[in-house]
Amino acid sequence: MNYKIIAYILGKVMMFVSIFLLLPCIVALVYKESVGFYFLVTAAISLALGMLLSVKKPKDRSFYAREGFVVVALSWISLSILGAVPLYVSGEVPNIIDAIFEMVSGFTTTGATIINDLDAVSKSILFWRSFSHWIGGMGVIVFIMAILPMAGANNMHLLRAESSGSNVGKLVPKMKETAKILYLIYISLTILMIIALSISGMPLFEDICISIATAGTGGFGLAGDSIASYTPVQQWIITIFMFIFGVNFSFYYLIIFRKFSQAFKLEEVRWYVITYLAVVVLITINIYNLMGNTADALRHSAFQVASLMSTTGFTTVNYEIWPEFSKGLLLLVMFTGSCAGSTAGGIKISRLVIVAKGIRKEIKKLIHPQHIKITKLDGKALSDESIKSVTIYFIIYIALFVGSFIIVTFNGYDFETNFTAVSSTINNVGPALGAAGPTESFAAFSPLSKIVFIFNMLVGRLEIYPMLLLLMPSTWKNK
Amino acid sequence: MNYKIIAYILGKVMMFVSIFLLLPCIVALVYKESVGFYFLVTAAISLALGMLLSVKKPKDRSFYAREGFVVVALSWISLSILGAVPLYVSGEVPNIIDAIFEMVSGFTTTGATIINDLDAVSKSILFWRSFSHWIGGMGVIVFIMAILPMAGANNMHLLRAESSGSNVGKLVPKMKETAKILYLIYISLTILMIIALSISGMPLFEDICISIATAGTGGFGLAGDSIASYTPVQQWIITIFMFIFGVNFSFYYLIIFRKFSQAFKLEEVRWYVITYLAVVVLITINIYNLMGNTADALRHSAFQVASLMSTTGFTTVNYEIWPEFSKGLLLLVMFTGSCAGSTAGGIKISRLVIVAKGIRKEIKKLIHPQHIKITKLDGKALSDESIKSVTIYFIIYIALFVGSFIIVTFNGYDFETNFTAVSSTINNVGPALGAAGPTESFAAFSPLSKIVFIFNMLVGRLEIYPMLLLLMPSTWKNK
Repeated sequence: MNYKIIAYILGKVMMFVSIFLLLPCIVALVYKESVGFYFLVTAAISLALGMLLSVKKPKDRSFYAREGFVVVALSWISLSILGAVPLYVSGEVPNIIDAIFEMVSGFTTTGATIINDLDAVSKSILFWRSFSHWIGGMGVIVFIMAILPMAGANNMHLLRAESSGSNVGKLVPKMKETAKILYLIYISLTILMIIALSISGMPLFEDICISIATAGTGGFGLAGDSIASYTPVQQWIITIFMFIFGVNFSFYYLIIFRKFSQAFKLEEVRWYVITYLAVVVLITINIYNLMGNTADALRHSAFQVASLMSTTGFTTVNYEIWPEFSKGLLLLVMFTGSCAGSTAGGIKISRLVIVAKGIRKEIKKLIHPQHIKITKLDGKALSDESIKSVTIYFIIYIALFVGSFIIVTFNGYDFETNFTAVSSTINNVGPALGAAGPTESFAAFSPLSKIVFIFNMLVGRLEIYPMLLLLMPSTWKNK
Repeated sequence: MNYKIIAYILGKVMMFVSIFLLLPCIVALVYKESVGFYFLVTAAISLALGMLLSVKKPKDRSFYAREGFVVVALSWISLSILGAVPLYVSGEVPNIIDAIFEMVSGFTTTGATIINDLDAVSKSILFWRSFSHWIGGMGVIVFIMAILPMAGANNMHLLRAESSGSNVGKLVPKMKETAKILYLIYISLTILMIIALSISGMPLFEDICISIATAGTGGFGLAGDSIASYTPVQQWIITIFMFIFGVNFSFYYLIIFRKFSQAFKLEEVRWYVITYLAVVVLITINIYNLMGNTADALRHSAFQVASLMSTTGFTTVNYEIWPEFSKGLLLLVMFTGSCAGSTAGGIKISRLVIVAKGIRKEIKKLIHPQHIKITKLDGKALSDESIKSVTIYFIIYIALFVGSFIIVTFNGYDFETNFTAVSSTINNVGPALGAAGPTESFAAFSPLSKIVFIFNMLVGRLEIYPMLLLLMPSTWKNK
């Protein structure tokens, strides 16, 4: 293990954190909030720590997959801890585990909160929470890669370790240029959303906070009732953008470069659209009686499905009172998540598509052992190796889910709460059902459960391996 | 598809069913119950149908995997339907879907019941229910294979299609002899249990019914409170035998042939014992306060864990009121199930061991890509192909679970009930939690849900592929 290069990159990350921390300072200045002071101090600490760690450029540039995973895991952990300092020191979140939970939830774009009364929270911290979604959505490391001049080909290990989904690989060759274009798309879409909400008459502060939280598919709200008190038009705008940020960014990339046929060949995007529409229609029919008219039923259905499928976690209604069928479908899309290469969490549609193809192949082989066809994805051959990797990923995910679930049962909450709280955190959604439902918070869970949730959120955002490898003794052995 | 040979084998199966149906006739004679008449009539119908189908020995002996799967699926379905006739015609189960549910539950060794008042049921039908577990436990087709002189090497496709777990293959070469020895073990253990319970003072009828239901890891009880009113000694005897019938029969086979080192090398058996003991200890500690003394806590814990892990489904207490942690662990062992090559259901420990090894390999590869070691199971190399098959199996299992769950939500029951009812049927356990808990029945579910459960139980017992292939259009295409 090359510790020196790990320390060096960690240092760079911390220096960037100090820049991020200056934004809430500006908010504090605008709203004349004293909490800005704590952000400034934390920024200074981050900068000092970062400079200390990265002062010596390491000579040994050897950097392999395990270094990549470890750097990514440690970066996100330090990002979250540093980000939590202002919340804790200012006294707005008086418990240290709660403060870390809140910022991990922010950076992992989960949006699960331990704050019961959002009205009591300062604007600077509200902004910082939403902004953490935006940072988390774009991925810290990749962002730094795109800006800083650093080690050459081995950057790939970093990109792979942090990027969501398995098909980012395609964009790797011209990684830096590609990353820049992806960020431009991300920023442009965010600005577009801010403009749209602004036209709808939303006050600027709320507009910006909601837009950046949507862009990162985070879901921290500004009010206890999330998005319920906004106008139907505003809710529709948010619905559309939640859906947009769940699409694989490769799609937009290909559209920009006018590679339309390639863009529309992306099977993942097709299945994403089909699944979304199907679930919206089913739930609309199912909740029609509850809502009384088609417009409301459709709007709430479209919003909630976009929110939970993109793993944003905003809500416009308390879907707890919806029929079990609708709740079952919502739970389902929390697991599927959206596309790889988007800012969303969950298992990802691409993985499900690959797994489905693997199943199909296996069954075909049983029926007609002599006729083996090549399995394809997006028109290209899909190797057995890829199928195996994805199925293994899937099963590790389930194993972590089960382990977390068992620990969380110690809280004494009911089955629904335990099950959905774990699924909400590991899928980076935010709200769950039962005692962790859309009208509740995660405040009442035990510290042990909160630590499990913190781990789950990081596991979900970093797609398992970085967190898992961090805990494996053999990662740290020098072989 | 070779339809003629399918019809021929189906015919043979039905002729055997007619023999099975004579046993409850004897019970009816002993207890002078008129319901025996319906069993006799059904036996006659089965015999007639069977002879009709198997009158012509097919010339074309071509028999491949898909024929194997289809024969197995159709055999179990006709077995269940024929077995349900006496229940329905006698009026003791006045609903046809309920009657089929009950017998599918019997033959698949599930033990989930739709009968609310067992005291109103005749002894002949009580015996038939328990006996169906015993038949289902040993596997109809394999049983017939072992007795009848039939087609040669292709029997393997039948054995593979019906046998539980993936490692029966080892015993295939001398299939017929092996099968006979396995049945001798099965029968001997059953008799041993009957003797043990008899010494404990249990009346013969209850003794036999409980023993054969335990041997098949079924779990149909004779009283509304299952095993609760029996003595602690009797409960311990049942506990031990539930555990014994969850062990891979290869283990006993190897012991008999004095291949001790090979027997104790079976990793699955080792993990089965370890998991069982660990869960029993954890639950004993967790329910200690509820029970008041160690002896009771240990007995109820040992019984319930053996029951749900071997997917038998007997109960001595209403574990619904146990802490969430204990309920979570019980739910977990319902999924793990016991060993492949036993009469138990669930995912099977061997699959979990293989999957765990696959995960370990994948992670090792990430950390040290240059040091690839061979993965072994029971001292032999475990191929990537095997790992892939098992992971795919696992994921199909989950997909079926999720699909069933969504349909079952239409009942309007709570999340816990829906989730555990599906898991209880697909794992062939019997009782679930909530409205399908140990003190309840499946009677109140909608016909649609019951059909889903029937499908699930068959999927669980036949290990997915036979039922899945039955529904695939491409199975029926002649290529």
